[in-house]
Amino acid sequence: MPKSSPVRTADHVDEVHFAFLDGHAHATPTLRGAQSPATPPVQQIQHLAGTSAPTTIIHLARLLVFLVLLGIIPSTIIFLVDISVHKVFDLRESIIELDIHSPLAVFLFALTGVALCLASTFVCHLCSTEAEGSGIPAMKSLMSGFYDKVKPALSLWALLAKTVGLVCAIGGGLPVGWEGPNVHISCIVAHHLSRLPPFRALRRDRALRMQIMACACAVGLASSFGTPIGGVLYALETTASFYLVPTFWKCVLATLAGSFVYDMLYKTPLVEAFANTSFGDTPYRGQLPAFMLLGALLGLLGAFFVRCVHTLYLLRKRRLPGTNRYVLLFVFGLVAALLQYPLPNFRLDPRLAINDFFSAEKMDMFSLPEVAILVLVKFPLIVISIGLPVPAGVFIPCFLVGAGLGRLYGELLNLLFGQNVVAGGYAVVGAAAFTAGVTRALSVAVVIFEVTGQLKHTMPTLAAVLISVIFANGINRSLYDALIIMKRLPYMPHMRRDRTPEQKVHHIMRTDVISLPEFCSLVQIRETLDKYQSFDSFPIVTKDGLLLGSVRRRSLLNLITRANANIPAEAHTAKPIERHAQAPQESEESPDKDLSVQEADLSVMESEDEQARKQLIPQDQLTINQSFRTRLEPDLSPLIVTANTSLSQLHFMFVMLMPTHAYVLIGGELQGIVTRGDLVQSGEPPNLPSHPHLSELAPT
Amino acid sequence: MPKSSPVRTADHVDEVHFAFLDGHAHATPTLRGAQSPATPPVQQIQHLAGTSAPTTIIHLARLLVFLVLLGIIPSTIIFLVDISVHKVFDLRESIIELDIHSPLAVFLFALTGVALCLASTFVCHLCSTEAEGSGIPAMKSLMSGFYDKVKPALSLWALLAKTVGLVCAIGGGLPVGWEGPNVHISCIVAHHLSRLPPFRALRRDRALRMQIMACACAVGLASSFGTPIGGVLYALETTASFYLVPTFWKCVLATLAGSFVYDMLYKTPLVEAFANTSFGDTPYRGQLPAFMLLGALLGLLGAFFVRCVHTLYLLRKRRLPGTNRYVLLFVFGLVAALLQYPLPNFRLDPRLAINDFFSAEKMDMFSLPEVAILVLVKFPLIVISIGLPVPAGVFIPCFLVGAGLGRLYGELLNLLFGQNVVAGGYAVVGAAAFTAGVTRALSVAVVIFEVTGQLKHTMPTLAAVLISVIFANGINRSLYDALIIMKRLPYMPHMRRDRTPEQKVHHIMRTDVISLPEFCSLVQIRETLDKYQSFDSFPIVTKDGLLLGSVRRRSLLNLITRANANIPAEAHTAKPIERHAQAPQESEESPDKDLSVQEADLSVMESEDEQARKQLIPQDQLTINQSFRTRLEPDLSPLIVTANTSLSQLHFMFVMLMPTHAYVLIGGELQGIVTRGDLVQSGEPPNLPSHPHLSELAPT
Repeated sequence: MPKSSPVRTADHVDEVHFAFLDGHAHATPTLRGAQSPATPPVQQIQHLAGTSAPTTIIHLARLLVFLVLLGIIPSTIIFLVDISVHKVFDLRESIIELDIHSPLAVFLFALTGVALCLASTFVCHLCSTEAEGSGIPAMKSLMSGFYDKVKPALSLWALLAKTVGLVCAIGGGLPVGWEGPNVHISCIVAHHLSRLPPFRALRRDRALRMQIMACACAVGLASSFGTPIGGVLYALETTASFYLVPTFWKCVLATLAGSFVYDMLYKTPLVEAFANTSFGDTPYRGQLPAFMLLGALLGLLGAFFVRCVHTLYLLRKRRLPGTNRYVLLFVFGLVAALLQYPLPNFRLDPRLAINDFFSAEKMDMFSLPEVAILVLVKFPLIVISIGLPVPAGVFIPCFLVGAGLGRLYGELLNLLFGQNVVAGGYAVVGAAAFTAGVTRALSVAVVIFEVTGQLKHTMPTLAAVLISVIFANGINRSLYDALIIMKRLPYMPHMRRDRTPEQKVHHIMRTDVISLPEFCSLVQIRETLDKYQSFDSFPIVTKDGLLLGSVRRRSLLNLITRANANIPAEAHTAKPIERHAQAPQESEESPDKDLSVQEADLSVMESEDEQARKQLIPQDQLTINQSFRTRLEPDLSPLIVTANTSLSQLHFMFVMLMPTHAYVLIGGELQGIVTRGDLVQSGEPPNLPSHPHLSELAPT
Repeated sequence: MPKSSPVRTADHVDEVHFAFLDGHAHATPTLRGAQSPATPPVQQIQHLAGTSAPTTIIHLARLLVFLVLLGIIPSTIIFLVDISVHKVFDLRESIIELDIHSPLAVFLFALTGVALCLASTFVCHLCSTEAEGSGIPAMKSLMSGFYDKVKPALSLWALLAKTVGLVCAIGGGLPVGWEGPNVHISCIVAHHLSRLPPFRALRRDRALRMQIMACACAVGLASSFGTPIGGVLYALETTASFYLVPTFWKCVLATLAGSFVYDMLYKTPLVEAFANTSFGDTPYRGQLPAFMLLGALLGLLGAFFVRCVHTLYLLRKRRLPGTNRYVLLFVFGLVAALLQYPLPNFRLDPRLAINDFFSAEKMDMFSLPEVAILVLVKFPLIVISIGLPVPAGVFIPCFLVGAGLGRLYGELLNLLFGQNVVAGGYAVVGAAAFTAGVTRALSVAVVIFEVTGQLKHTMPTLAAVLISVIFANGINRSLYDALIIMKRLPYMPHMRRDRTPEQKVHHIMRTDVISLPEFCSLVQIRETLDKYQSFDSFPIVTKDGLLLGSVRRRSLLNLITRANANIPAEAHTAKPIERHAQAPQESEESPDKDLSVQEADLSVMESEDEQARKQLIPQDQLTINQSFRTRLEPDLSPLIVTANTSLSQLHFMFVMLMPTHAYVLIGGELQGIVTRGDLVQSGEPPNLPSHPHLSELAPT
């Protein structure tokens, strides 16, 4: 990691990498049949581990252990958070139990609520503002290829802020969920776990790193509900734009480990868990239209929910632009506490309420008017909470509202059509449909099957969820997409507003490409490296501007360092050639020539990379013979497009291959560059540092 | 579709297309918030339908209707096949019921069995040999981008052969499954349904066409078992190498429609269906190691199964190279009939046997020794059946064997450790683990949850399946991958045996690229078009060989046609320029010039495309002024790589973008081409027609 570079300029960082690349380079398809020679064991493990890097048993074992740990550690943290929330709940409940009618109790309840809300936002303010909000939008941005940009959100400070903030926010009575924060927490754990010495080897493979983050997302969700399959699918739908099949088993392994922990811990009576439903064999086929109508209604309501969140966000931006976070939390914490105080059911863990809504019989804790009030009050509270500067998930609150609405709908049908209608079934379908309407994830259905432990309502649930998603998608985008836009996160599948898919690449490309000429003096290389410290690769062009390929920053540094250290092996990468042009194909045969000159010229250079980097322009550089040139060998294959490529094609290539930039050729000449930031809003101010024009660096 | 081209040469067909492209070109991310202007409805539907083509409500409705039909029609066909099998079963059963000890009954039973087996292979022989085997390997090949190559398998004759052949094969007593054939059937239905006038518009979008095929695969599986979610996931894992998230809802809609039909039809007492299990709340957490051991054992057995199939295939190829298909079927049909005759449980519908194995109580129909015999006899029978030239699935037979083995294992544990062990649970886990060991699909677990209607054994099943897949993958490839290799189907994720991921593109590229010069006479265009009738696009190079882009065959034909028809609008695509070079940027301003010359030259051309195609070289071509040249405008953006790109990178690009070929540039010059066939075994003989060298076509 080039820590010494202070400014990472826009998108022209990093080499063109093909993340997910290695998931697919199956080598030769060999079957261990009678006639084919026995393949070496290394090759056989390849398709198992899903990487093309030479995979040994040790590497595989490392990966397996890592994935199991990735399942266990976040699950444990999530459980600890959950138990802390529970403790806080109990403490505040004990205030009320003293004397519910005393003004002191009201005061104490409100005070603790407000204090916890303020503490929640304070810890975010202090440690990491990245910890605010759901966390899923940021991970979505990360999964679309912006690992480097999202990195600040993966600090241990963010972990601290997220966990403590989450405990305070939920404990303080805010109607926020924990599945988004849990995803964030497990991604932070994955990031730091993979930096530990035993697992550092896994990080080297970019593709694997992305797969690991996908697993982390899945673990976060699976451990929130104890749903190994639903977690994987929900993470897939909400964070990824496509999924490679080899990622699948890794995710399942991690979520399984996580679910095992969940299973062990939540079977203790410490914390509430979702109860399995127990619907009988009542036929429901005739009720399918009713379920579908419920799906449609809740889909529209889900879209309305997203719109409310967005409108509120815009209103706050415009009307109350400089509102202090503490003022916000104070007011809202007070409102939440005062609303919750008189109604014991409002203070309930949402899981208990949901269990009650799902029950096949009459509800234990809620009367129908109470359900209606709960839904009516919670809806606006949830809309507001999502925009507050505290950690805030959205799944569980939506689940609660949807379950309540479904229950009401079911009870209504029950009144109208008699005992054949099981209201609890409608609550299940309603919870899934409303959550799907908000998040636009069909896999909510799978989550609910696993949560309820029953597959009785497969078809109505799926149908309602599907209709809900279709209706809601007809109106606006998913909440996560809306949050990405609101928070200005870079996200590859969203094209920039000022681009249309029909535009051609030459309309948007930047023409000021920094490139190195094929025959290039070491001084020139050093100057370029020094000037563009944030660039990880440079294109190499012929004297006519024709693109040859690109070269890593590392290789250039090595070249300079080796020239200095006079290592004989140096000739293989650095080929000093005095002929200036018209000597293209012979470079392989001209090693060791003029090595002494090179050596003399570069004697001031340091031998270590980092040092070399800092001292790229020594004071005696002007004495170096300017006419001496080295032939640069491209060692990277950049993504290349022609100028008449449409943006929709280019965008597709960026989504699928996840490069950082693409070079634009016109008749073989390198004429432009398109970076990710030119296609998607990268979340950075548009005033990029001006680049010297191509011609500035071309040999004169 | 260029039907007139008789030979489609290797892989250099079709334009470079980016299948799945349109699933992602979300336009500008607009939220219908307070400040953003209301977006036009067309744009809002885009992200719903998942295509970037201008999507209207009508287009969406068309798609929805199509998907519902795609769910309903194959399900109905599948049900009809199933009911026919049932009738055949009943008929043959009635023979036995007459008098089980009479030699006549034996004779009749064997005779009908052999006759049906022979009929099964006869109908395949007669109608379409593509109908033989599972069908999933062919669809896997199709889904990896080889639509055109797999097309013969999508004929209506193949549908006929597959359905009739399947009824005869299962009815004849062969232990073959129907899920693979069902996938094939529903893909054929999808192909032909999309060619009907109302849905033809859907076909135009290549990306959508591939998504539709993905849906068809999912429907085939879902309708075999009535498992909407498991079907989608199993289809994902077995046929695709990656999945775009927008495909997901389309698949779910189709499978849901299919499952609805399944639900309606299979609740009739006409055909056996899988029964829901009813395991109690026996704790099984302590038994997790036992479940995992079962998974490991059955994973190894699954790998052994794949190896047996492959070895048998090789043995038959070597020892009995020219065996007649009828002899094979006669012998094997007779063996199967004689083995099944004395044992009534052998003649049972596998679903009934599986239901019995899965029962929580004592088995009704089987004693333990019978289970052991069933497994021992069925295992080799299944191995042999898969290689026979009849339609033959593999899922259900594996399911049966796995369930039997699991039951035996469970009963053994029950004997050893007492009543706490529910043997039926082990049967469920065993069925999933063995099938996963053979197919390497984790989603078998989801299928089994849906089949049994219970989520009691989530964790043991998932753990066993995961371990089974990991162990089996350590030994060899999945059965479907093995069948792809055995049948020499082209499949993108399998790199050719003679390629290694470390090789560079310049090692494997072909240098004989057919290209057109930038300034090109119409005669030259006509000659090229005529000579390479199968090529759908041609690269355009400058006189120095620098690549400008490529041009569609269609555009070239239009250019010639328009020149002939003297349409004034022609000037926009064909720009006659007499200056030979050094006139690059002015082409837009030189319309209508020399139109009369062009017109005169080309007066012999027909105005219709097809006719123009056939008469590309009229007799008076020699009289055309050879010095007259047109400037070609590239209208396609090909995939371009530099010569030092590694094959692993190139392979990844081919897998993700699904182009048909890539051009190789060395310093901007078009130096080579790599087609899909150069990377993967394309299933065609390697003696490709020789191409004239690049220089032959370059302007002299």
